[in-house]
Amino acid sequence: MRFLRALRLVEMTKTMSLSKKIVTFVLMDYRKFFSDDVASFLRSPVREIFSKVDLSAICSFAGGYPAAVTFPVEDVKRLSHFVLEKYGTKALQYGATQGVPELRAAIAARYGVPVSQVQITTSSQQGIDVCTRILCNPGDVVVAENPVYLGALQSFRSYRAEVKSHEQYTGGGKFVYVIPDFNNPSGETMTLQERKDLVAFARANDLLIVEDSPYRELRYSGEQVTTIRELAPERTLQLGTFSKIFAPGFRLGWIIAPEPLLEQIYVCKQALDLCPPTYDQYMAAEFLSSGALDRNLTKTIVEYRRRRDHMVSLLEKYMPEGVRWTYPEGGLFLWLTLPEGIDTVAMYDEALSAGVAYVAGSFFYVDGSHRNTMRLNFSFIDESKMENGISLLSSIIRNASI
Amino acid sequence: MRFLRALRLVEMTKTMSLSKKIVTFVLMDYRKFFSDDVASFLRSPVREIFSKVDLSAICSFAGGYPAAVTFPVEDVKRLSHFVLEKYGTKALQYGATQGVPELRAAIAARYGVPVSQVQITTSSQQGIDVCTRILCNPGDVVVAENPVYLGALQSFRSYRAEVKSHEQYTGGGKFVYVIPDFNNPSGETMTLQERKDLVAFARANDLLIVEDSPYRELRYSGEQVTTIRELAPERTLQLGTFSKIFAPGFRLGWIIAPEPLLEQIYVCKQALDLCPPTYDQYMAAEFLSSGALDRNLTKTIVEYRRRRDHMVSLLEKYMPEGVRWTYPEGGLFLWLTLPEGIDTVAMYDEALSAGVAYVAGSFFYVDGSHRNTMRLNFSFIDESKMENGISLLSSIIRNASI
Repeated sequence: MRFLRALRLVEMTKTMSLSKKIVTFVLMDYRKFFSDDVASFLRSPVREIFSKVDLSAICSFAGGYPAAVTFPVEDVKRLSHFVLEKYGTKALQYGATQGVPELRAAIAARYGVPVSQVQITTSSQQGIDVCTRILCNPGDVVVAENPVYLGALQSFRSYRAEVKSHEQYTGGGKFVYVIPDFNNPSGETMTLQERKDLVAFARANDLLIVEDSPYRELRYSGEQVTTIRELAPERTLQLGTFSKIFAPGFRLGWIIAPEPLLEQIYVCKQALDLCPPTYDQYMAAEFLSSGALDRNLTKTIVEYRRRRDHMVSLLEKYMPEGVRWTYPEGGLFLWLTLPEGIDTVAMYDEALSAGVAYVAGSFFYVDGSHRNTMRLNFSFIDESKMENGISLLSSIIRNASI
Repeated sequence: MRFLRALRLVEMTKTMSLSKKIVTFVLMDYRKFFSDDVASFLRSPVREIFSKVDLSAICSFAGGYPAAVTFPVEDVKRLSHFVLEKYGTKALQYGATQGVPELRAAIAARYGVPVSQVQITTSSQQGIDVCTRILCNPGDVVVAENPVYLGALQSFRSYRAEVKSHEQYTGGGKFVYVIPDFNNPSGETMTLQERKDLVAFARANDLLIVEDSPYRELRYSGEQVTTIRELAPERTLQLGTFSKIFAPGFRLGWIIAPEPLLEQIYVCKQALDLCPPTYDQYMAAEFLSSGALDRNLTKTIVEYRRRRDHMVSLLEKYMPEGVRWTYPEGGLFLWLTLPEGIDTVAMYDEALSAGVAYVAGSFFYVDGSHRNTMRLNFSFIDESKMENGISLLSSIIRNASI
């Protein structure tokens, strides 16, 4: 009987109109199906901003997109054909889970590590995710900077890891997560001494270190500082990405780590997505090993340095007293601290109506604090709109201060 | 004091030679860092076979690679430039987490579903993984076919889901996983009645259904059967992929599912890899909507039909009595059952030495049973090698039968 009834339901479904189908979906309660992790999923407020408004129509300092002008379109055009000629159909076939040997070798050579310590990832967001996945049980502690990169927070929270700042840390846990160079969101760079202290902290507490380095190659002033990986190769998983030195549309990154850690990441990645995109990997390999990457990087740095300097000069020109900002030596962001009492979350709708967007700083704090801060991106906005945007923003801040 | 000692260690690391660094890694025990999931990670025996031997040098029926001759190389060449001209730098920038609108629209139109029910994935392996991730806690039951697709088993096991066959099922659980069309590994196709029974089973037990459809478009004979999604749209997550109808090197798939389920997959995917590869998505969108996909598919089907027929005729010609096989109406595989007592795992090294590779059937069984079975792939091997391969294989089976 049960089977018969069920079969009648099937027939009903088949003859239902589309609108009725939607009614069926609404009537079904899917919540009971979800895993316990789902309740901890964190929506990116940045991506929510994007879906609400056409950012190209306003002055947007939100987001962390690279400038389209830095994309090596002509190189991509050339390489897209070159790769098919050089590698043939291999460029369109499944590849090794670790990544294609040519790309792993090019990265190993650039950073002076053995090929066996390089795993290609389908974006460095996947790098963060897979590290968390192989290391964290629910409740395991991750020690993170505060403010912390939102995508990392999303990943940690999605596995129900407990994210603590250095100050909150009381022992135990799996790893420290840090963006030491031109931090997202703060724009700041750790000194060598701070890196040594961090390594000492990790060693003393037997923690691994996830060193996220998406912006390291984008330095506009000052001197490069030794990586944490070089200071503590035995316990560091260093993440890199092509998103800021080639183009984010390829979704390619890498992990440099001790082999016993990569071994588990490799097995995990088989189940995650089998292998990174092959065609894109060959293009990245050729872009890197031919020297085109470094030529493009030189131009990119000139472009971004000018934007940063312009941004800082506009902040100096327009911002009211009591507003402070970080001076980034590289990367894509700077961080504004407004006078106490100004709430950048509450101020956001007014800013958007006026035609300027930013990301409220409290989104980057695990506890949602620091509501008088904001992250500003200087890489994506049209330079012609920068002055208008900062001028608008300063008016809004000025009004909020009264 | 503790800090000082740690700092001295840092200095030591910096002056160590590379070989000494490797010693440090070996001395470190990383096992304590791993999450509980890691112990359940399942290595793909198929990928292990690939890493051990140069498959192009032997007659390989292992693996599930599409034939390189089916890859639309000229289309890719053309589209790689066309996409840059049409979409400009947007093709190289970050895209929406759900996938670029053009690709979602093209898939929605092809399969007659609303765009809001389409999520693009970075491979359909990711589709399996993300479904398991949002649905399964450790110990949750997944009802799967037996034998079952190995990549799915890897994903289920990696989240410590309990995989049960229909016969073992006693109630509860989250979803049924099935490849109804030209199954991997068995090559078989579910009849309409079997699909209706499955839907009735899922409805009676309030289970969702993950309908994995990687091969559905590759039908060489017989009539297309209604999809499970069409029979039970309210509880089916249908997975598709471009790997077999475009090229696997792009790592693009999709999920068609009720919106409340996609909503959680969307948030999860933000943390997994932010968005699928943009450039590749635009190429796939143009390939599909321009009609080039269907033109290429027609040729692919002719190619594979000939290979299947050739394979079956060779089995008829060479295989000793007592060997049976499935007759696949599509897809890439057929399934051999040898006389009881023959162990295809034990026989594997001998086969490899003789110059022929397959995948032992027991790898596709959760309990490792059915050691007298094997999966044979007919899409990847050079047609010129097929006869030699089947002849070699039949000799080995004949010897093992004595």
